[in-house]
Amino acid sequence: MNEHTPTAHAKFRPLSVDKVHVGGFFGPRINTICAVTARTLFDRCIEARMLDQVDPDRPNPGLVIPFQHGNTVTTQMFWDSDFGKSIETAAYALNHCPDPELEAMVDQVIDAYGRLQMEDGYLNSWYIRIEPGQRWTNLRDRHELYNAGHLIEGAVAYFHATGKRRFLDIMCRYADHIAQVFGPGDGQRKGYPGHPELELALVKLGRVTGDQRYLDLAKFFVDQRGQSPNYFEHEAQARGEGEGGFYFGTLEYCQAHKPVREQDRVVGHAVRAAYLYAGMADVATEFGDDTLTEPLEKLWSHLVDRNLYIHGGFGPSAQNEGLTFDYDLPNATAYAETCAAVALVFWASRMLGRGPDGRFADIMEQALYNNALSGLSLDGTKFFYDNPLESLGDHHRWTWHRCPCCPPNISRLVASIGSYFYGVSDSEIAVHLYNSSRAEIALAGGNVTLEQVTDYPNDGTILISMQTDRPLDFALSLRIPGWARTATVTVNGDPAATAPRAGYIRIQRRWQAGDQVVLTLDLSPRRVFAHPRVTMNQGRVALMHGPFAYCIEEADNGPDLNSLILADDAPLTAEPSGDLGGIVRLGASVLREGTVSQALYDSAPPARSPATLTAIPYYLWDNRAPGAMLTWIRREG
Amino acid sequence: MNEHTPTAHAKFRPLSVDKVHVGGFFGPRINTICAVTARTLFDRCIEARMLDQVDPDRPNPGLVIPFQHGNTVTTQMFWDSDFGKSIETAAYALNHCPDPELEAMVDQVIDAYGRLQMEDGYLNSWYIRIEPGQRWTNLRDRHELYNAGHLIEGAVAYFHATGKRRFLDIMCRYADHIAQVFGPGDGQRKGYPGHPELELALVKLGRVTGDQRYLDLAKFFVDQRGQSPNYFEHEAQARGEGEGGFYFGTLEYCQAHKPVREQDRVVGHAVRAAYLYAGMADVATEFGDDTLTEPLEKLWSHLVDRNLYIHGGFGPSAQNEGLTFDYDLPNATAYAETCAAVALVFWASRMLGRGPDGRFADIMEQALYNNALSGLSLDGTKFFYDNPLESLGDHHRWTWHRCPCCPPNISRLVASIGSYFYGVSDSEIAVHLYNSSRAEIALAGGNVTLEQVTDYPNDGTILISMQTDRPLDFALSLRIPGWARTATVTVNGDPAATAPRAGYIRIQRRWQAGDQVVLTLDLSPRRVFAHPRVTMNQGRVALMHGPFAYCIEEADNGPDLNSLILADDAPLTAEPSGDLGGIVRLGASVLREGTVSQALYDSAPPARSPATLTAIPYYLWDNRAPGAMLTWIRREG
Repeated sequence: MNEHTPTAHAKFRPLSVDKVHVGGFFGPRINTICAVTARTLFDRCIEARMLDQVDPDRPNPGLVIPFQHGNTVTTQMFWDSDFGKSIETAAYALNHCPDPELEAMVDQVIDAYGRLQMEDGYLNSWYIRIEPGQRWTNLRDRHELYNAGHLIEGAVAYFHATGKRRFLDIMCRYADHIAQVFGPGDGQRKGYPGHPELELALVKLGRVTGDQRYLDLAKFFVDQRGQSPNYFEHEAQARGEGEGGFYFGTLEYCQAHKPVREQDRVVGHAVRAAYLYAGMADVATEFGDDTLTEPLEKLWSHLVDRNLYIHGGFGPSAQNEGLTFDYDLPNATAYAETCAAVALVFWASRMLGRGPDGRFADIMEQALYNNALSGLSLDGTKFFYDNPLESLGDHHRWTWHRCPCCPPNISRLVASIGSYFYGVSDSEIAVHLYNSSRAEIALAGGNVTLEQVTDYPNDGTILISMQTDRPLDFALSLRIPGWARTATVTVNGDPAATAPRAGYIRIQRRWQAGDQVVLTLDLSPRRVFAHPRVTMNQGRVALMHGPFAYCIEEADNGPDLNSLILADDAPLTAEPSGDLGGIVRLGASVLREGTVSQALYDSAPPARSPATLTAIPYYLWDNRAPGAMLTWIRREG
Repeated sequence: MNEHTPTAHAKFRPLSVDKVHVGGFFGPRINTICAVTARTLFDRCIEARMLDQVDPDRPNPGLVIPFQHGNTVTTQMFWDSDFGKSIETAAYALNHCPDPELEAMVDQVIDAYGRLQMEDGYLNSWYIRIEPGQRWTNLRDRHELYNAGHLIEGAVAYFHATGKRRFLDIMCRYADHIAQVFGPGDGQRKGYPGHPELELALVKLGRVTGDQRYLDLAKFFVDQRGQSPNYFEHEAQARGEGEGGFYFGTLEYCQAHKPVREQDRVVGHAVRAAYLYAGMADVATEFGDDTLTEPLEKLWSHLVDRNLYIHGGFGPSAQNEGLTFDYDLPNATAYAETCAAVALVFWASRMLGRGPDGRFADIMEQALYNNALSGLSLDGTKFFYDNPLESLGDHHRWTWHRCPCCPPNISRLVASIGSYFYGVSDSEIAVHLYNSSRAEIALAGGNVTLEQVTDYPNDGTILISMQTDRPLDFALSLRIPGWARTATVTVNGDPAATAPRAGYIRIQRRWQAGDQVVLTLDLSPRRVFAHPRVTMNQGRVALMHGPFAYCIEEADNGPDLNSLILADDAPLTAEPSGDLGGIVRLGASVLREGTVSQALYDSAPPARSPATLTAIPYYLWDNRAPGAMLTWIRREG
């Protein structure tokens, strides 16, 4: 068992969470998850009666959440995934700060899963306790393989955090069972997850166990998806499902409309889509599979060039929790699910598996610092499910949700954020994200301790220092964000004589203990304008500073945020905030439009008077007095 | 039987359609209805199998249109109303130009209704032939009394047009039956229409027959609505309907949430609302009921000050076909049903029953010339159901609709438009609308023939000439539209020495044959700005000319209409169109915004280059090459 067992063509892998100690910007957020959120997730799962369903020694809760869409689905079917992500969050929290009580709580749930698991390894609390005898009858709608994936991710994380093997062993048995049932062989089912997720989980399991079979199964699921005859149609016929039985109607909804190598547009349910593409990218990395590169690049461009919100989210529509048509990026009604932004971070991070590329890392950062991070309140107790870019004041974080997928998802991402900072190959360290931290990195030639000291993203200076046992030849690749107007790098005080390539400055040298690299990025506030085909943003401007998209809130600007008009040439100021932990606020002089009369229609345009505007990072909104919020500000001129 | 039997406090009534011969702007539209539309309506009703349901000697069609919303409703239940409005349209068409074939077609349908009518007078084709035994069990949802109203309106119109009494007699028998079943007496039901309409129809029936009982029944329905205990709740209990049985959930949907004299906000289904208020205004006029004045004024203000589209439509939401919240006036998704604009013309016209008032006549004109008129294609064969103020090019008129309420509704309005031109009391003629026409008007003191000659609304000069048997003392009140920057009136060449009051110049004198009044209105094009709380229209401007709201179409302006930016100080030109029957087009120099790059987000704003803009009246859109349309144009500055 070795985190770094190389497979044939593997290139850059993330560090596991236990290898990166995180401070700086993310430190306090992780502390809050340790102190509050991790426990809160378990409490709310248990209050929702999830443990009653999992623990075979407790009275069977029966149907707790009613079916939706006829007899197809209840979110109760997804409860295993909520536990999986909550265990994963707890694991990362335990990694950051030991907490015996929390660990005991996790062990209690793992113990229940151990007792629930069937002789043959099968493990799904819905199908074992609520609908026995129905397993593997509806992969399309019922999240059966998705649940397995989340439990596997939880098991891998818990093993890393505690060294305890029990949950990992349970999940290996289940994965072994799945690998018996599904596969290319005679008598094996040719199905795949209706909600992708298991693919990337199996890659994690393969990496931690060194067992190639899990990687092979991930590849099988990727390869099999959308092949003819379509498995989901075949399965629906077997259920005797008539026309109209499929609530979402189209195979695009679950990305099963064509084989993945023929897909070139991001379609359907946003979270399913990005989890799938993340799994594809993992398979491409692990198998050196270049046939996946072209579809992944096309899918990426389709998302980033036509369907990505400025806050790094995607999927505008609540109806299908996903995509609609190109340039459809409404603000007030944006669905932009927290889970979709988290999934985009996953996808983007895995697109870095074949080597550093700023196209992917920039978007990873954009999704992370904006749409994803907004999903969790500063106090760690409340969660956004959907993330509109404009609110009239009636949108607030939930304490829980009927479908509680987002709370543990954003929590596990933040608690594991250190593993997204670096990509490591045998002889190269790529720094994708900047944040004060200390990382233990094993290269082929020896070990490196890499320390970042920085106030990023409030400040653009990043000090990177190296400790090595002995001088080591390797390349250090530093990401230069696409938005940075200027960037300078010095090594031990000397300017690095290299220009960025694919968004990274690559410094190849013999490094030794005490070497210091200083990167200075220009963070000065900037305006962003949308493509004119994004109708909602015509005549509007967004403000950014570093990776943050900004918004204006009623708490700072009063009501009627659309009455504020910002001239293109008005200077933007950047000052640390008092009430939001010192995070930089932006300010500007603006005009405020008022009414001339109370009439609905008037022959004179609204009058304008001088006012000031104060903007805060989008992810911080709705942490103070509740009120209206606006991301795209009206322009003058 | 006398059209002008005065009741105690009645004031201003419209002329019946046969008294006004219409030319000018509306003449060709009525000719098209005579030549094409009236027949088309019958053909499509019959193709839809409506006559099979009405004619008891034809095989019963059974359920043709499936139930929606559980077992509550199918639009097949409303078929009588479609025939009622189609007969009404045909009647007005026959009035304008005799057509024996069309008349025979109508007589065939009337004959079927005669044979369908039950012994006790009851007449509803759904309940007689599809669900016998269920009559009067669901007034709330099933349009039973609404259907009666439309058949009554058809009967009144057909009597006026042809002098034939048969249909009128049939409908009097049915109205007599309804008056037995419903009323304040012991043993009578205390119900009222779930979809208002019968109220105003009964006032028409009372006026044409001189029978006070019909007016009393109209008043009963108005007075009874929303009283406690609520009839619709009582009725739902009697049906054994559980929670959730009421698809639209709230009594506001059908304006039964409180007694009408306590209502002060326009709520729920837009057509139901305006039909109700029209009936209330009729009752206020006929009974001189001042207790209805205050609620009607409040409802009017709520609509006009906060919820009216610039094209005179209302009801933004498809979900409830009606109102949402104040200032919610989205453009691209506007429902703004044609029927609602027609109903608003009805309501506004009836608000003139207590005397001329420009507040009401201005809105009547605005709804008529824009949202209502857009419902009918220039060739008279296609119909808009919903009327968005912006389209990406995918919105076009239907040849028919599953719920074909709008086609005959806009058709009957246009074909009867002459009756909206005047309000007549014993000693006053109010001219509400200007259009070349000749009207025969009976005043208490004698008869007047009033002729208008004008190219209005293309031109602002209106020549009014009078023929009388002998000199007559009466007041002529001429509406001065609120939007007219200047207006002058001469009588026989001499300036009228009177200022407008409540939007009318009132000329009281002894009129004699040959007297000529010339009214000159300034029609020059104008800009209109929306209240800033209409978020969708911030930074935008609408163009108007006379009563017309204008739009820009792809046919004249190319695609990407939101890329055009109009400066507030750019001069507007007004020229007759070539391809749209000489109707005035507006033009201006504008800037066209183009892309700087293909990127979704860019650091530079879109580039701008000079272009020209051509606007046409909103009602004319989608009569040429299909394409995008936009009403609220982006402003510069």
